[in-house]
Amino acid sequence: MGSTIGDVSPVQTENHPVAARPNIVLIVADDHGREAVGCYGNPTVRTPHIDQLATEGTRFSHAFCTTASCSPSRSVLLTGLHNHANGMYGLQHQEHHFSSFDTIRSLPVLLEQAGYRTARIGKLHVAPEQVYHFQRVLKAGGVNDPASIGRSPVEMARECYPFIDEKSDKPFFLYFATDDPHRSNTVAPDGSPIFDGSKPNLFGNRPGGYPQVGDHFYQPREVRVPAYLPDTKACRTELAQYYEAISRLDQGVGRLIDYLKDTGRYDNTVIVYLSDNGAPFPGSKTNLYEPGMRLPCIIKLPKPERPGFVQAAMISWADITPTLLDIADAQTTGAQQQGRSFKAIIEQEDVAGWDEVYGSHSLHEITMYYPMRVVRERRYKLIFNLAHSLPYPMALDLYQSFTWQDVIQTKQKQFGKRTIVAYLHRPRFELYDLQADPDEIHNLATNPAYRAKLTQMQAKLRRFQQQTQDPWIGK
Amino acid sequence: MGSTIGDVSPVQTENHPVAARPNIVLIVADDHGREAVGCYGNPTVRTPHIDQLATEGTRFSHAFCTTASCSPSRSVLLTGLHNHANGMYGLQHQEHHFSSFDTIRSLPVLLEQAGYRTARIGKLHVAPEQVYHFQRVLKAGGVNDPASIGRSPVEMARECYPFIDEKSDKPFFLYFATDDPHRSNTVAPDGSPIFDGSKPNLFGNRPGGYPQVGDHFYQPREVRVPAYLPDTKACRTELAQYYEAISRLDQGVGRLIDYLKDTGRYDNTVIVYLSDNGAPFPGSKTNLYEPGMRLPCIIKLPKPERPGFVQAAMISWADITPTLLDIADAQTTGAQQQGRSFKAIIEQEDVAGWDEVYGSHSLHEITMYYPMRVVRERRYKLIFNLAHSLPYPMALDLYQSFTWQDVIQTKQKQFGKRTIVAYLHRPRFELYDLQADPDEIHNLATNPAYRAKLTQMQAKLRRFQQQTQDPWIGK
Repeated sequence: MGSTIGDVSPVQTENHPVAARPNIVLIVADDHGREAVGCYGNPTVRTPHIDQLATEGTRFSHAFCTTASCSPSRSVLLTGLHNHANGMYGLQHQEHHFSSFDTIRSLPVLLEQAGYRTARIGKLHVAPEQVYHFQRVLKAGGVNDPASIGRSPVEMARECYPFIDEKSDKPFFLYFATDDPHRSNTVAPDGSPIFDGSKPNLFGNRPGGYPQVGDHFYQPREVRVPAYLPDTKACRTELAQYYEAISRLDQGVGRLIDYLKDTGRYDNTVIVYLSDNGAPFPGSKTNLYEPGMRLPCIIKLPKPERPGFVQAAMISWADITPTLLDIADAQTTGAQQQGRSFKAIIEQEDVAGWDEVYGSHSLHEITMYYPMRVVRERRYKLIFNLAHSLPYPMALDLYQSFTWQDVIQTKQKQFGKRTIVAYLHRPRFELYDLQADPDEIHNLATNPAYRAKLTQMQAKLRRFQQQTQDPWIGK
Repeated sequence: MGSTIGDVSPVQTENHPVAARPNIVLIVADDHGREAVGCYGNPTVRTPHIDQLATEGTRFSHAFCTTASCSPSRSVLLTGLHNHANGMYGLQHQEHHFSSFDTIRSLPVLLEQAGYRTARIGKLHVAPEQVYHFQRVLKAGGVNDPASIGRSPVEMARECYPFIDEKSDKPFFLYFATDDPHRSNTVAPDGSPIFDGSKPNLFGNRPGGYPQVGDHFYQPREVRVPAYLPDTKACRTELAQYYEAISRLDQGVGRLIDYLKDTGRYDNTVIVYLSDNGAPFPGSKTNLYEPGMRLPCIIKLPKPERPGFVQAAMISWADITPTLLDIADAQTTGAQQQGRSFKAIIEQEDVAGWDEVYGSHSLHEITMYYPMRVVRERRYKLIFNLAHSLPYPMALDLYQSFTWQDVIQTKQKQFGKRTIVAYLHRPRFELYDLQADPDEIHNLATNPAYRAKLTQMQAKLRRFQQQTQDPWIGK
């Protein structure tokens, strides 16, 4: 409008020429719990490459998924919208068949619009394709796909070389999603169960291993059994297998990063390492207890100013898309987001205003209706179980796990620090003081001394539901 | 294979040349309960054209939907698969966002493959489009679409004329789905409620009426209040509006049939009239009680041999697709079906082997998880409420209805013959003797005298769940 004299063309006004913007690598592990990473304090599991990334970048100590279920969590990661707002209420595959609304504009699409070239490799597990469109699919994965490359993260890394090397003025966005360390398929193609709980799951491990992967084996006696799990032989045996899958995954991460370094791209690439949800054991995955939602998250900026920094800001997976769009300086007019960018504070000490996160779980499998909403502050957590009169639903792979079946068949009453009855039958509200009770055993919701705290946090949840257009707000 | 001498070409072996096969018109009303049709015994509501169709064709006295929810029921009608097997577990529109599996082959697709030309008009309410593909969409409808033609069934009929008249050797399949007599929208485009329960819904009725529709008005005092509804002024007022929408719908049916007669096509056309589910009132829609699932169904064969026949065979909407494919003599190799064709028995008296139907309800709105399975025999019905510990969920339009709110706000304890507590809190199993207790009030599931009957019917449901690959079989 007005005079064109003096106007400059859009190309000239662009503050950040496309080529100067960093590449982005988003690595998403499958069911990698925070308690099984070296740099998060586990002295046994070998994750030297992930640890090295933390040494060179920023390690988040308070990073949370918003729902501890694979497809919904990935949908939040890739949209910045809670699953209840993007339509991906549960798992995408087979009969579960959830998908996001056609109107959603996801991270790869917005980055492509901003001038990035985009590719993914490994597990997608969200739908529909046009919403989660990447320009290139280097090789597909997914724990339900027998031809998946996702169990061979080193091979995955190698498959990315040509995409990384492509001659282009455009920066790239690579979405690198492994199948590791998820449990191996529990259902055969004909629908019959492969694992019936009578032996440990192999977590993708196989005799002879995978090409170019140096196997790490673990002894059941050396693993660290977290407080939410039973210290049984069965559980230790499965944790040993789980660790092996994690070490395999770690080598893939290492290979990918090495290539970025070798080709001189490391200093112009943002690398994010995180997991969709916690470990594939009852008490973690599908739960909004800490083991399910508090996760590893490491971010290496192109040129870190404070290598090895530990960031205590509370962030959630709803913040990942806004942050990466911010880093890419992408114009995102019209794209709704429910998280917010934390780009500015990644390497900042003592940040203010990052002291709570919200989460929302709807279903997992189609039969596992159990909507929950959560607000997690520094000290307190409130979980709202909207369908609390139902028994807590068990995911098939967790129900059939050696760890769970062993406890059930030997008629034990406890699972970790929790009683099985308490695990399966939950109250409408669960209020925990994480400082006094880090294992979330003592529900304060009915304690009159915490009445004011409960009311205050309930009001927060109500606001969260309103602001995020939660279909469950009437429940 | 073998000698080609004597082989005949596919064209020559075709027993039923395409042109000799009948046209098919499938009319699906929206929420038209069996108790509000003249030929089903209601002396007040004027449905002369539907009644005339029954006089000329066959009226089914025991026809049942398998789930009393719009999208799921339509998915069953159009696939022959229960909703739990086709993926359409709940409503299709807005945030509910359910859809069928991409691999499903639906009635219009199979009829097109069999040489039919296909078109639809009005409400679809199932997805995805490529699964429920019609060659032509004459005009779209749907109660959530302000531009819908579905409230003007006479206009709908007129819009079909060119398609019917099209010069073609192919028979046609016309899917004619009205918005009548559904309640009017309860939510404005901005999400705010239009109806808050303080006044009667208008069921699409409007001042000045619709083009070429002779309005029928009803007085609240003259309507018939069925046993499942409260005999209140509020309910009678809403029923009067409901009747008006039904009479409008009836005129559209009449116009369509008249045109088929006028153009000489009536004697080569199969016409089916039915409804997706029962009346839009608590106690009917979303329920597997008789008012929700036992529905009008009239089928006029091209040349009826027994005009006015009343068929007592028990059929369900899972049988409609197999029957119409059978009538069309369509080859359906590879298309899985869970219903069975009743073509052979339409005009047959005292048929054997049609004495039970099965149903399966999963959700309605995304927040309304309440899976139920039902087997309905001649005398007994067993409903299995899989998530019975949840309160029975109320659909938004029924919850906000004048009829329901009036009862709630005046603090009545009964709704029809049922207590409100019983309506909202249901046991795991409900067993009714429909002969002694047609209103399904006295649950016999805990009565020791019916132990054997209960066990037998539970075994039937179990078999049904196994045979139809029910994801909920483990619950």
